[in-house]
Amino acid sequence: MKSNLSLYALTEALRRLPGIGPKSAQRIAYHMLQHDREGARQLSVALSDAIEKVRHCERCNTFTEEMVCTMCTSPDREQSLLCVTETPADMLMIEQTLAYKGLYFILMGSLSPLDGIGPKEINLGKLIARATDGVVTEVVLATSFNNEGEATAHYISEMLKARGIRVSRLARGVPVGAELEYVDIGTIARALLDRQTT
Amino acid sequence: MKSNLSLYALTEALRRLPGIGPKSAQRIAYHMLQHDREGARQLSVALSDAIEKVRHCERCNTFTEEMVCTMCTSPDREQSLLCVTETPADMLMIEQTLAYKGLYFILMGSLSPLDGIGPKEINLGKLIARATDGVVTEVVLATSFNNEGEATAHYISEMLKARGIRVSRLARGVPVGAELEYVDIGTIARALLDRQTT
Ligand SMILES: [Zn+2]
Ligand SMILES: [Zn+2]
Repeated sequence: MKSNLSLYALTEALRRLPGIGPKSAQRIAYHMLQHDREGARQLSVALSDAIEKVRHCERCNTFTEEMVCTMCTSPDREQSLLCVTETPADMLMIEQTLAYKGLYFILMGSLSPLDGIGPKEINLGKLIARATDGVVTEVVLATSFNNEGEATAHYISEMLKARGIRVSRLARGVPVGAELEYVDIGTIARALLDRQTT
Repeated sequence: MKSNLSLYALTEALRRLPGIGPKSAQRIAYHMLQHDREGARQLSVALSDAIEKVRHCERCNTFTEEMVCTMCTSPDREQSLLCVTETPADMLMIEQTLAYKGLYFILMGSLSPLDGIGPKEINLGKLIARATDGVVTEVVLATSFNNEGEATAHYISEMLKARGIRVSRLARGVPVGAELEYVDIGTIARALLDRQTT
């Protein structure tokens, strides 16, 4: 092993990725060193580049390299509508429906008290400030329809209604228990049209 | 997208890893940027470190940071026995059986003409030089028992027997069609004891 410290360190670093077990980590490390050192170099650069440059948009909290992302500064979007999603991937899904023309707020997670993820971890203070700017008149909750997503939607709904904001939720065309990222676009489009005031 | 070039580059670099699809690449990228930037930094360093330092042992062809690995220079191993495996992982499996005390040669692959992997790609010239050094008296073939592994074993066997080297193969205690890495250690130990001259 002492003649292989850097291979060991690489395997351990790969194991830290979500969904990668010890066997996969070893196979990936061997593959890159044997067949794709150029890919390994690109990944190394991409990682250090991303952690240096990627930050959160000051308005919508999504990943961006600028202070405010291009979505938030677009003049073509309806400024009074704010859609709340758990992840940037969920936002992209909603964009693909072409059924929504407002702006977004990305929580970067969902409430999960048992995992130590409370209101602060999903940036609810930032959401309140954003939703009460005087321009937003309706917040559309597009969190997932599993337990955490529903609890998050309920919590945000109570919080914003107490501040006089109109809150709606994607209609229950989305299958209960499903995670938004895996739902077909047609269903999401239907659910957007049928959104219900809560 | 133009405000997210480094996130895009990271996702693309992750997609290049074996077994990682587009959804997994996106999920891993989001996870690291949101929850584990330290892990991302460690992986970036581990990758550049490994591609800089890891080379192939001049004797056995395994991954090492030195000219010759510690296994090859160990005085405790039987110098006349040489076991041929496809990968360093397979070598580690055989070591765990404690049933083998000789040295190794790692092919770093198996013959697969349709994928463009011929004798040169799996370092058979290096193996011939190693096996005909005058000290090795028997070569134990421990390639996998799938089609590629069997073809590789057959090819090496003919090649070495033509040069007067005694060649044996792990006994067929290993299930046909299985890849060595996933076989239980007891079966591998049995197959080592029952190895047959070919
Ligand atoms: Zn934004
Ligand atoms: Zn060696």
